[in-house]
Amino acid sequence: MTNRYLTLIPLIYSLCALPAHATDWQALPDKAPQPADNPSTAAKVELGKMLYFDPRLSSTGTVSCFSCHSVLEGGDDHRPVSMGVHGLKGGRNAPTVWNAAFDSVQFWDGRANTLEDQAKGPIANPVEMGMADVGLAVDRLHKITGYQPYFDGAFGKGDNITADNTAKAIAAYERTLITPGSPYDRFVKGDKHALTADQQRGMQAFDKAGCTACHSGAMFNGPALPVGTGFYMKFPVYAGSPYVAKYHLADDLGRYNVTKKDADKNLWRVPTLRNLVYTAPYMHNGEVKSLDEAVRVMAATQLNKQLPEQDVRDIVYFLESLSGPFPASMMPRLPPTPGDLLSAD
Amino acid sequence: MTNRYLTLIPLIYSLCALPAHATDWQALPDKAPQPADNPSTAAKVELGKMLYFDPRLSSTGTVSCFSCHSVLEGGDDHRPVSMGVHGLKGGRNAPTVWNAAFDSVQFWDGRANTLEDQAKGPIANPVEMGMADVGLAVDRLHKITGYQPYFDGAFGKGDNITADNTAKAIAAYERTLITPGSPYDRFVKGDKHALTADQQRGMQAFDKAGCTACHSGAMFNGPALPVGTGFYMKFPVYAGSPYVAKYHLADDLGRYNVTKKDADKNLWRVPTLRNLVYTAPYMHNGEVKSLDEAVRVMAATQLNKQLPEQDVRDIVYFLESLSGPFPASMMPRLPPTPGDLLSAD
Repeated sequence: MTNRYLTLIPLIYSLCALPAHATDWQALPDKAPQPADNPSTAAKVELGKMLYFDPRLSSTGTVSCFSCHSVLEGGDDHRPVSMGVHGLKGGRNAPTVWNAAFDSVQFWDGRANTLEDQAKGPIANPVEMGMADVGLAVDRLHKITGYQPYFDGAFGKGDNITADNTAKAIAAYERTLITPGSPYDRFVKGDKHALTADQQRGMQAFDKAGCTACHSGAMFNGPALPVGTGFYMKFPVYAGSPYVAKYHLADDLGRYNVTKKDADKNLWRVPTLRNLVYTAPYMHNGEVKSLDEAVRVMAATQLNKQLPEQDVRDIVYFLESLSGPFPASMMPRLPPTPGDLLSAD
Repeated sequence: MTNRYLTLIPLIYSLCALPAHATDWQALPDKAPQPADNPSTAAKVELGKMLYFDPRLSSTGTVSCFSCHSVLEGGDDHRPVSMGVHGLKGGRNAPTVWNAAFDSVQFWDGRANTLEDQAKGPIANPVEMGMADVGLAVDRLHKITGYQPYFDGAFGKGDNITADNTAKAIAAYERTLITPGSPYDRFVKGDKHALTADQQRGMQAFDKAGCTACHSGAMFNGPALPVGTGFYMKFPVYAGSPYVAKYHLADDLGRYNVTKKDADKNLWRVPTLRNLVYTAPYMHNGEVKSLDEAVRVMAATQLNKQLPEQDVRDIVYFLESLSGPFPASMMPRLPPTPGDLLSAD
């Protein structure tokens, strides 16, 4: 599929959404899909959890995947934009790791196709984990000798402490970070008492307003697409909305920064709406602080609508029903550090 | 007890240790002592675990107790000196939180008497969690409304989200972070196969060299003393040792910085030797990278001895037997963040 073709998809969906239609409300699957070249095993998931929590993969030894994607919270870091090594700031709001296994591309701008590719990005990002390259992180893992048996268990004995295997293990762990079984999921599976009357009214308002044009499917991030495809949408569409200036919504050109194609200016991966209650503040720049304001902003900038406040409230009630349940998990144990691994700098 | 009297204790112990004697090898108790005004309950421990892992108690929302005292590792941060908000560095190596519940004073210089007092320190330290005062952290907790039921459960309903209760909950959690049942503990309780021959030889060498003069008791941090007492020792004693200049061991005046009394210059709380394998690098400034070098340094600077290398190796074997087991624990779940809690700065 060419990129040019892909950018038309949101438009087609928008058009399709206008006439009366039966929305296909989908529940989240109980299991995330796994790529053929990285089947999940218990040993790989456990190793991945260890690596996910290990700040020694960062230059200062202070920033791990977990730092900006806290699985104790919404899978993000509750900051407008993230903060990496030496307190350096990134330019975007951390996307949630919860259910990222169901996304067809990773990052706000879709610059990685898979969880495996994504995992390597922040390690070598100078304002995130700050390693000069991923190889240096792998060198660290070799020096932390206690990791060897875990890599052996996950990948079989051999020269197995590699960047690819590190990424594979982290991705396997992330495929366990899913939240099927929310009130919404139970509702669409037939439990008509799973949503309150307010939430059901909000579900109708969400559909009627046209939100489902983009926020469709089990993830509310668009249609299910093959890994690497990406479902992108222009944001903001209605650039004249006062919200655009107020929240600086058009400043970051999104996917254009990856492709340098004019057609990709202000295009963004349509983000999931699951667990939004846990992921404030909102938008790619984290400038919108509350969920009700996020609903107003999206209606104005994407649908050119000012929704009645009752609809805004109801839609928020509905969005709240897309939360959790978050799977319980044991803390990992990390192998000990040789004392010369990290400098004082 | 006056401070002047306390500073004599190490001297008395040193003198006592010189003649032949039967060392009183003690196992770690299975339970940490609790203060009368802060009895542990399951609800309080769970709240304390949440707060311990919550980076929203720091100005940037990026640093929690866990950041520098990782319970996934050695209860510290594997760095020479710690790194707080904005990448600012502290002046000392993070002491382990494991078994801190058995220490009679907290911090390297004993500037807090209790775990409760300790917990408040880093929150308002400009290079650690960076809040202007602890009250601002409490304000945050009020705004994170999901905390209210947990405080109610731990402390009873009422105006219970306070700095004191926050510290009490964290301290109650920390009293669960103990590691009885190491090979050493099993050995002194009668399991004569719990230590290897190397470790038993190291145990004798440790005693014979005179290490037990200060590193005595179940914690290997001196005699059991009432909370708030502190067992301090001058370090380095033999300031002419080449190690003193090499590792800058006399630069930080230790307890003198707290009391401003000349007698307290270069006095330090005798640290526990438990779980040392997990807490490299070593000493108050984290300049000594390996455990064998730490043994050499201590023998030279405190006992004016150059130990045979076989003794150094054996003592390291023995110290390794003071490790774990680390209790398994579920990850806590943290309540969601209001979007206006943290700025982008």
